[in-house]
Amino acid sequence: MIELLNGFLKELSHAIDNRKVLTKEEDRYCYSYDASFGQYLPDVVIQPTETEEVATLVKLANKYGVPIYPRGQGTSLSGGPLPVEGGAVIDCSQWNQKLEIYPEDMIAVVSPGVLTSSIDQKANQYGLMYAPDPSSSNVSTIGGNLAENSGGPRGLKYGVTKDYVIGLEVVTPEGDIIKTGGRTVKNVTGYDLTKLIVGSEGTLGIITEAILRLIPKPQATETLMATFHDIVDSGKAISTILQTGIVPAKMEMMDQASIRAVEDYQPLGLPTDVEAILLIELDGHQVAIKEEIEKVRVTCEEMGAKEVKVAKSKEEALELWKARKLVSPAIVKIKPTKISEDATVPRSQIPAMFERLKEIREKYHLHLVVFGHAGDGNLHPNIIADIRDHEEMERVEQAVEEIFHAAVELGGTLSGEHGIGTMKSPFMEMELGEVGLEMMKRIKESWDPNHIMNPGKIFPSPGQRLVLRND
Amino acid sequence: MIELLNGFLKELSHAIDNRKVLTKEEDRYCYSYDASFGQYLPDVVIQPTETEEVATLVKLANKYGVPIYPRGQGTSLSGGPLPVEGGAVIDCSQWNQKLEIYPEDMIAVVSPGVLTSSIDQKANQYGLMYAPDPSSSNVSTIGGNLAENSGGPRGLKYGVTKDYVIGLEVVTPEGDIIKTGGRTVKNVTGYDLTKLIVGSEGTLGIITEAILRLIPKPQATETLMATFHDIVDSGKAISTILQTGIVPAKMEMMDQASIRAVEDYQPLGLPTDVEAILLIELDGHQVAIKEEIEKVRVTCEEMGAKEVKVAKSKEEALELWKARKLVSPAIVKIKPTKISEDATVPRSQIPAMFERLKEIREKYHLHLVVFGHAGDGNLHPNIIADIRDHEEMERVEQAVEEIFHAAVELGGTLSGEHGIGTMKSPFMEMELGEVGLEMMKRIKESWDPNHIMNPGKIFPSPGQRLVLRND
Repeated sequence: MIELLNGFLKELSHAIDNRKVLTKEEDRYCYSYDASFGQYLPDVVIQPTETEEVATLVKLANKYGVPIYPRGQGTSLSGGPLPVEGGAVIDCSQWNQKLEIYPEDMIAVVSPGVLTSSIDQKANQYGLMYAPDPSSSNVSTIGGNLAENSGGPRGLKYGVTKDYVIGLEVVTPEGDIIKTGGRTVKNVTGYDLTKLIVGSEGTLGIITEAILRLIPKPQATETLMATFHDIVDSGKAISTILQTGIVPAKMEMMDQASIRAVEDYQPLGLPTDVEAILLIELDGHQVAIKEEIEKVRVTCEEMGAKEVKVAKSKEEALELWKARKLVSPAIVKIKPTKISEDATVPRSQIPAMFERLKEIREKYHLHLVVFGHAGDGNLHPNIIADIRDHEEMERVEQAVEEIFHAAVELGGTLSGEHGIGTMKSPFMEMELGEVGLEMMKRIKESWDPNHIMNPGKIFPSPGQRLVLRND
Repeated sequence: MIELLNGFLKELSHAIDNRKVLTKEEDRYCYSYDASFGQYLPDVVIQPTETEEVATLVKLANKYGVPIYPRGQGTSLSGGPLPVEGGAVIDCSQWNQKLEIYPEDMIAVVSPGVLTSSIDQKANQYGLMYAPDPSSSNVSTIGGNLAENSGGPRGLKYGVTKDYVIGLEVVTPEGDIIKTGGRTVKNVTGYDLTKLIVGSEGTLGIITEAILRLIPKPQATETLMATFHDIVDSGKAISTILQTGIVPAKMEMMDQASIRAVEDYQPLGLPTDVEAILLIELDGHQVAIKEEIEKVRVTCEEMGAKEVKVAKSKEEALELWKARKLVSPAIVKIKPTKISEDATVPRSQIPAMFERLKEIREKYHLHLVVFGHAGDGNLHPNIIADIRDHEEMERVEQAVEEIFHAAVELGGTLSGEHGIGTMKSPFMEMELGEVGLEMMKRIKESWDPNHIMNPGKIFPSPGQRLVLRND
């Protein structure tokens, strides 16, 4: 194994600028973790900035049997970029040279290391927008977003990353360069490799360039906050609003535990006696959304809201959103370890999911807070714990497993937007069945016969279980 | 071969209600063609209405090596359902028992044989709509739409069939039943088999049920017709409108040849001296689209429109659309054989594509009319010819080949919405490259090791060329 690695490194040193190859322990250490669990030291980190470099290194990885792991900024919550079997991390975060907007075709062409928010910012200069808005968009790269098919609050109205990708340049697991899709929105020429590769978590190749669809930026927004004594009423408000024909750009919820955490962390004057807060944003034509926000207000009141506040200015709107933005920093003040889940259910099952989460919280005596993108059923149950507390972490593992079972039993899915990675692979067969998983494996096997492309992700090893403990 | 077929039929007769198995020549004859070219008599036609029946027959087809071809209503323009190697046509058009709307989850659950327009009609009762609107939607089945990833005029604003499919039940090429996706809009649990199977033209399995996403039905529409002396000006009008931030629901164009054909067929008073007509429909909030249609009107005038007419009533709007709807029936009055293409280019290349089509028309002395979904670059160059004229059909073949080359050279694609089937497979490598096509083939091989699922489609046989002649 050491010999193969040395052979790989030796040939690599002739093929790629040595400043792009990191072998010192302190450098490699920085690439041993992501925003999920577990730590794995890679043998080498390579920082390509050209497609040909990637093709070369992938061919060498095949020749020497060295596993490779594409990585953006490492914000993955599911373990996507972790080098679990050793080998080479391919750090694409330095590869941010291309960010071109073609306003007439309403597309952007980007390198994998471009920060996601900068695409939207540049599109804005042309009156356009890049709609997907993962919460990490200021720090995460588009390459990582593409690999994981990231979602975000705007998913309710605008969809997720995949809905905006129309073409890719990809280095296949055997080191060939292919182009999928193109610059046209409509394309039915053969299988849709674009949408297969987006969301495949780096197991089917390395994305080296992407063509993204842009849309006109809405001219105005309206923001509303509603508080509810009963969390089930907030769920009813969500589905009633959607049935009136209004599709908000965002529809976020916070449960009582989230509200209290925020107030403890930075008092904003939120009511700590209510069970839920809904934050709703509409966007579109000024006149239309003025009328619609009034309908939303009335609906919330009819559904039993305690208080409804419509922002009168941009500043007031930002103030209302502050509560939601503070949830994540606030809850990690309670205990240091945050287990962020994204089990997703059909919209009609949100009240049932609330019930199940309440039961799980009580059964395992855990600090479980719930917030997230309620409008599309994509809740974020977060468990707050201390990784040094062995006994507590065992309860967390059991609770997480029950959350997955609850979501699937309610007709939902293990993951709405975080991906499977190492964290959820033990549960794949529960959702997909043996043959469903087998059909995915066949694709993987046929594309990556030497098993070098991001091994240990998505597909469970026999008998694999969820382990969050460090020991 | 005959023995294998007899074995297949014998076992089938024990497994499936014999009234669902058609073996008489006059019955089989009805399934020997579609709306494209060529005729191939199947050995048997099977009309399943249950998933288990499909699983059984697919397993038997594998056992006896009998090719199978799923089929809806046979409206395919690319040869998708043609039984080119003999064997069994699986006619799903009788399987229309399930059409369920779940308004709270904003989804429809449907059997493959349901007519596409009936989904939208039923959704309308709940204030919802099924957005994809292929021109064939009153006669084509959703199963066929799913297999081909059908587009339609509304594609510009709302996308195509694939954008509205969130879950499938599928019988794999080896006869296993799998479910992909589910009832949630967000789902990143493993590879996106849903979007891989939609548009795979029946080569990766038989779709037995689908979960479709519905959206709120827009409350109002506005319709406008603009005529242009110069076709290039009409192209500029399209891109200028889109850059003002307005996304029309539909943006259709007709060239002079289409206009003259309609006026010859059924005089509507259209100006036959203009080079192009644009038909634009906006939908959304009443106040918003009133303002936007005025902007569209002004833009068309600024871009050199000869005349702009905004419909003042529903009746007037229908009257304006009548011109576009009559194009297809009108042009087949000129000559009996219509070769309908759907090569698609990036929006910015529409004027260049007009130029190329003009050159091709002159070079081959053919009756070439152009109309279609100009807003998304999805033009429909139609050649009108007579299949009995051998010499003319040879010129048609050459012209079609040149149209494909022009589209790909301009950064476009062979097919925007009709699919590859038998018609375009010879040109796949030109667009995708050898490795790009090879990666698709690997998926096909890994899923269908016995090559029984709709063989002869998408992937070219060695040396295959386009042949439209009957002899």
